[in-house]
Amino acid sequence: MKKAVVLLSGGMDSATVLAMAIAQGYACYALSFRYGQRHTAELQAALEQAQRQGAVRHEIIDLDLSRFGGSALTDDRIEVPTSPTQGIPVTYVPARNTVFLSIALGWAEVLGAQAIFIGVNAVDYSGYPDCRPEFIAAFQTMANLATKTGVEGAPITLHTPLIALTKADIIREGIRLGVDYSATVTCYAANAQGEACGECDACRLRSKGFEEAELADNTRYVA
Amino acid sequence: MKKAVVLLSGGMDSATVLAMAIAQGYACYALSFRYGQRHTAELQAALEQAQRQGAVRHEIIDLDLSRFGGSALTDDRIEVPTSPTQGIPVTYVPARNTVFLSIALGWAEVLGAQAIFIGVNAVDYSGYPDCRPEFIAAFQTMANLATKTGVEGAPITLHTPLIALTKADIIREGIRLGVDYSATVTCYAANAQGEACGECDACRLRSKGFEEAELADNTRYVA
Repeated sequence: MKKAVVLLSGGMDSATVLAMAIAQGYACYALSFRYGQRHTAELQAALEQAQRQGAVRHEIIDLDLSRFGGSALTDDRIEVPTSPTQGIPVTYVPARNTVFLSIALGWAEVLGAQAIFIGVNAVDYSGYPDCRPEFIAAFQTMANLATKTGVEGAPITLHTPLIALTKADIIREGIRLGVDYSATVTCYAANAQGEACGECDACRLRSKGFEEAELADNTRYVA
Repeated sequence: MKKAVVLLSGGMDSATVLAMAIAQGYACYALSFRYGQRHTAELQAALEQAQRQGAVRHEIIDLDLSRFGGSALTDDRIEVPTSPTQGIPVTYVPARNTVFLSIALGWAEVLGAQAIFIGVNAVDYSGYPDCRPEFIAAFQTMANLATKTGVEGAPITLHTPLIALTKADIIREGIRLGVDYSATVTCYAANAQGEACGECDACRLRSKGFEEAELADNTRYVA
């Protein structure tokens, strides 16, 4: 059975990607990070998604990026904005997707996996540089040169099935595959119970997605 | 003052790179990893080098790659070879330099650093794919696309001052800059006191370097 490492944050996008990878017949190895994010409700959601959807294994790696800070998601002194901002927002975590993909690459090579799945999205997104197709293509080129697998002619392929989809498309596809979005946490400022603020950039994009898909939004918001 | 993140393992090469970066006028932020390696004597050496050479700051990041295994350096069930092997050796740690450079990239961006220094070497080396110039070039391209700094036109530059040097060249340069190699640990199988086995690939390359440089080898070997 072909194997894939699936980056799983516990949010809507990565939960959908896990369902898509499983539907494509991959034995899925889910990978999450306790990286010093503001809340760990999303990790609870990741655990639940991995279990419900039938991931073969789920690893939560400790890597404290809050030692460096520099982002509203890893430094409590920087506030999560509640209105849209110009340019790359303060919720950008320097090199986060590069770091996560690198660790996924290492695990994939050890497992003998053919694929890495990541839920980056370049349509309804927040302007992060490491969510764009040109970043993914450059990471693939680098990965082929970095690894024994790559050098020996059996490279590990990055899959980004959401990259050209709108949030509405993602939600439609996830619901078709049976993803329960009420058990995912997208909000940057969710509380300990995983309830969403409804105001941050991530909440706005998610809510707009349900609206455009004309589907009921079952996100659990703070009362 | 210009800033650089310097990857510092505690071995001969990275200690030399730190000295070179400091000689070039960089304020140096040393970065080491407790990644599940066989011994942590090299981390003691890294601490000592960072302090003696005057790094502005030294971070040791915990990232347990032994959760994945797959290398003689992170899995006790795979033995460190004591004779040369064909192809990429079992001491190769899948994607290790990619992971370390990615985390260095994140820190460099938060610091507003201009440079990352890494002691990879493609001459007297062990055949690792992630030590070659083509890997470094591909990482640079990827990093420019991955980061806010890169997108905004002030990319962080990778420096690999050892890449085309022989071990003898490296040792000559380090000694010229005052590096005390007796306080570095290169051996894959060093004991808790940091004493080298004298038999592994890393020991052999190091010892050959001193010989070719016609300099006294002050490595501390197991009695």
